[in-house]
Amino acid sequence: MSSSSSIDQPNVITCKAMVAWEAGKDLVMEEVEVSPPQPQEIRVKVICTSLCRTDITAWESQAIFPRIFGHEASGIVESVGEGVTEFVKGDHVLTVFTGECKTCKHCESKKSNMCQVLGLERRGVMHSDQGTRFSVKGKPVYHYCAVSSFSEYTVVHSGCAVKVSQQAPLEKICLLSCGVAAGLGAAWNVADISKGSIVVIFGLGTVGLAVAQGAKLRGASQIIGVDINPEKYEKAKCFGVTDFLNPNEYNEPIQQVIKRISGGGADYSFECIGNTGMVTTALQSCCDGWGLTVTLGVPKTNPEIASHYSAFLSGKTLKGSLFGGWKPKSDLPSLVNKYMNRELQVDEFITHNLPFEDINKAFTLMREGKCLRCVIHMPN
Amino acid sequence: MSSSSSIDQPNVITCKAMVAWEAGKDLVMEEVEVSPPQPQEIRVKVICTSLCRTDITAWESQAIFPRIFGHEASGIVESVGEGVTEFVKGDHVLTVFTGECKTCKHCESKKSNMCQVLGLERRGVMHSDQGTRFSVKGKPVYHYCAVSSFSEYTVVHSGCAVKVSQQAPLEKICLLSCGVAAGLGAAWNVADISKGSIVVIFGLGTVGLAVAQGAKLRGASQIIGVDINPEKYEKAKCFGVTDFLNPNEYNEPIQQVIKRISGGGADYSFECIGNTGMVTTALQSCCDGWGLTVTLGVPKTNPEIASHYSAFLSGKTLKGSLFGGWKPKSDLPSLVNKYMNRELQVDEFITHNLPFEDINKAFTLMREGKCLRCVIHMPN
Repeated sequence: MSSSSSIDQPNVITCKAMVAWEAGKDLVMEEVEVSPPQPQEIRVKVICTSLCRTDITAWESQAIFPRIFGHEASGIVESVGEGVTEFVKGDHVLTVFTGECKTCKHCESKKSNMCQVLGLERRGVMHSDQGTRFSVKGKPVYHYCAVSSFSEYTVVHSGCAVKVSQQAPLEKICLLSCGVAAGLGAAWNVADISKGSIVVIFGLGTVGLAVAQGAKLRGASQIIGVDINPEKYEKAKCFGVTDFLNPNEYNEPIQQVIKRISGGGADYSFECIGNTGMVTTALQSCCDGWGLTVTLGVPKTNPEIASHYSAFLSGKTLKGSLFGGWKPKSDLPSLVNKYMNRELQVDEFITHNLPFEDINKAFTLMREGKCLRCVIHMPN
Repeated sequence: MSSSSSIDQPNVITCKAMVAWEAGKDLVMEEVEVSPPQPQEIRVKVICTSLCRTDITAWESQAIFPRIFGHEASGIVESVGEGVTEFVKGDHVLTVFTGECKTCKHCESKKSNMCQVLGLERRGVMHSDQGTRFSVKGKPVYHYCAVSSFSEYTVVHSGCAVKVSQQAPLEKICLLSCGVAAGLGAAWNVADISKGSIVVIFGLGTVGLAVAQGAKLRGASQIIGVDINPEKYEKAKCFGVTDFLNPNEYNEPIQQVIKRISGGGADYSFECIGNTGMVTTALQSCCDGWGLTVTLGVPKTNPEIASHYSAFLSGKTLKGSLFGGWKPKSDLPSLVNKYMNRELQVDEFITHNLPFEDINKAFTLMREGKCLRCVIHMPN
């Protein structure tokens, strides 16, 4: 890195970033210019960034390029923009793809984490001025989810970062900035799983297994994991999955198998694949009367969820979940503490570690279903 | 009526019933034979039966004929079958299309009214033996929803009747055996509407207006009623509707209008038309974060509910409601008491009264949107 910064008046940083120039094409290591943080923003030295399935979905299918992906990350504050009082240089942070302004109607409500000011940003720009903070040889490079952690330095709105204990290992807790927290929150906040209940989880990636961990910690009596990849089973056991079902091994619809082994349907079902067709299956796998289906996935293709009205007439509920209902600033520090107190498993989700320059290998591992979380370590 | 019955051993009754011989064709007054009640059943002298939209939907579209429709009714117990201890001759009852056995897993749960033994019966037969209790000249006539109240006498399972106070006027409270209770329960049990909230209701028939009454009694601050029939507005006001929207009067989608006048979307929306396409509109009319859509209607055509996954990802919930979540035996007596104490409006839903022989007129009135509830009075 070649930088010319001072604490009071940070300047442009030039550093390495992995830039996506085209959909589905390998990321390319580039020298990027990173602007100083604007008012209410902070510039963060990224320490670790783990790869989340949503990065891949967007990289494969979206139209905004060139772009720096990455949103599940930990780092250290390098400089702060005008008006930022919450952070100082040296603070350890998790970045978050959906922020918390603390003043909008939704931030003030206990029932929502859908910040109306710093919510999910889909256009590749910063919330404050709709501009970018990256360029390559003067050409603007777009952000992803207002985080863009596949860069040695990034700029985020101060509302999209959470201060964490300096004792917490940044190379582990980056997982709590998206996937693991999303799954736990779906189990705890959105579904509010009760003791002794029966849970079925479609898709045993990190999010699905975090749901399993959440269900186990709530005392679920049966946790049925559904995945077409039999390699997931061993890992799934350690997060609490009690029954593993591979739909390819059955001649009957998997929801019928689930209804049979659960005595009439699960109390809760979770769609963690990002396949809208599976939402219907998940609804059908639930029991009448109080069956609750939570959909967490972002679909790669068909965005329409369709289900027969009778599923609802029989008393079922379909609920969405973005980041597991957590308000990032209010809630993430306590999740980090739970991890530090060994009340939460996080390390077990990390199946691979790779240096920054090998990030394309992480993409391949995840696309081939060979990893849960691959942590990318930035250069010192 | 020519009957030959004794208290101990009731016999076949011959009486008048309005029989549907074909889909969509006028009902025909016939002499029907009504069997004695079988074990756990009761035979009821119907006093009043009001016409519910679901009778018409089934009469127009279903394939089971000949049939005796009608399910929203009040009556007096004429005789009881073997093993019935809850009722004696002379008891006043409401009939219910979904029963309460009090012993199944769902009846024992506080979270469900989906009795697994006496739930919604769709095949036109009795729960206990899959047979019918009606015949015309020896030819079996099918039931509807295990009630079949378009007959001077009917037989129902004792779990599908609720004993009510002898002081309660049977010609009014028959409305509480289905539509009015369904709407109130959707507002109170299913949505659990909170004080000061914003509610939007699609379809201002009896069910929709009962939702409005429920919302009003919970202290909702804005109750938006949506209907293409402007004649509904005056009546709607008396049940608490504050804003009336006719989608035909707007060039923009009605959900945009609703979002504007509610400051970002309603807290709760209710689909009371039985149009699956409107479920999507109802979801879109809700606010992000905690918006809840309740679907109550039984669709006449397309049974598929389809919605973009992003509606759920933004924190919305879709929930079904059958009979408003009420357990009939456990809950209906208290609703009747609320009516008797003037805490509930019921009379205001009754727009027409007709003698039994004019029942086809009631069908016409409802199909033309000219009535809320038409109460059919049986001969003495």
